[in-house]
Amino acid sequence: MPQGQPLTVPDDGLTTRERRNRPLLMVHTGDGKGKSTAAFGLAIRAWNQGWNIGVFQFVKSAKWRIGEQTVLERLGRLHDETGEGGPVEWHKMGAGWSWSRKAGGEEDHAAEAAEGWAEVKRRLADETHDLLVLDEFTYPMQWGWVDVDDVVETLANRPGRQYVVVTGRRADPRLVEVSDLVTEMTKLKHPMDAGQKGQRGIEW
Amino acid sequence: MPQGQPLTVPDDGLTTRERRNRPLLMVHTGDGKGKSTAAFGLAIRAWNQGWNIGVFQFVKSAKWRIGEQTVLERLGRLHDETGEGGPVEWHKMGAGWSWSRKAGGEEDHAAEAAEGWAEVKRRLADETHDLLVLDEFTYPMQWGWVDVDDVVETLANRPGRQYVVVTGRRADPRLVEVSDLVTEMTKLKHPMDAGQKGQRGIEW
Repeated sequence: MPQGQPLTVPDDGLTTRERRNRPLLMVHTGDGKGKSTAAFGLAIRAWNQGWNIGVFQFVKSAKWRIGEQTVLERLGRLHDETGEGGPVEWHKMGAGWSWSRKAGGEEDHAAEAAEGWAEVKRRLADETHDLLVLDEFTYPMQWGWVDVDDVVETLANRPGRQYVVVTGRRADPRLVEVSDLVTEMTKLKHPMDAGQKGQRGIEW
Repeated sequence: MPQGQPLTVPDDGLTTRERRNRPLLMVHTGDGKGKSTAAFGLAIRAWNQGWNIGVFQFVKSAKWRIGEQTVLERLGRLHDETGEGGPVEWHKMGAGWSWSRKAGGEEDHAAEAAEGWAEVKRRLADETHDLLVLDEFTYPMQWGWVDVDDVVETLANRPGRQYVVVTGRRADPRLVEVSDLVTEMTKLKHPMDAGQKGQRGIEW
């Protein structure tokens, strides 16, 4: 891929280096494949740069354990053992977040999503991670489980040098507005259209 | 993400299991980000399933060493050392493919691309890999460095259970036609539009 050239140089008083190093807020949206996979690919690259990675999966089922989690957690252990790459934390909503696992009981997805966002917000304030992946976070935003204006304001005004990538369909226009890089994945052709179900190793 | 249900069930004489296990030919195209990153994400998942991975990067510059290569090769060594995951081979065109590195000399990208495709074709015939990533392969197709009909026929009729993902802009309609899963990544918003250049750890 050729190195791109900026179309315009903004009058923002920043040097090219300062602008280049501005931490990005990224969104992967659309109805196609690859939104989460590309976000995890970013996390893999970031690990290789020694970044501190935090993944927060806002999915309902804890059973859905995907290969990326295994691999990123393995890379995290590799960091702990050998110093290679960066540290990795992977949290998912499922049956309660790992920092507040409750035994049994009814699941309240809305409350869990709000709790997950509250934790992300604390970590953003503390500058815990260099890259935060908020996987499928557009859904709690859409369903009113978190306050969209709070999310947008918090992400837009996060301190320090924290990269954030949000994935999921139907990203809120307010989120798109404050984001630096927004990619839409569109399905041109999908095997489910031809009667094929998800495949192990490809879909999860 | 909810488990999708097929829109139609084809009258192809296959059971659901046979259809589910049909190896996929996938294309990531469009002008947006994430085409290669999502393909490498698939490779990461496939590694975790113990698949044999072959990556073939049809890029012109060998200098452009991206984080995914480091990480996937590291995972490949982890496999060799501990038996975890699957084996990984990563080849890139650059200044000659690794299986036929020539010292110095003029670079002939067209000949190198043709040589790369000939090697991929041999491996497909030999069923060497479970997943082949043909990264940025749409460009040699577009530039006439490889014969598109030969590529399409070879990929469509590959033997056994080999998954293939092709990345790059402007995928040829003939390739799209024979592919099972085609995703278009579209740029909605990009920091280069606001005068920001590529960032280490994000762009490469």
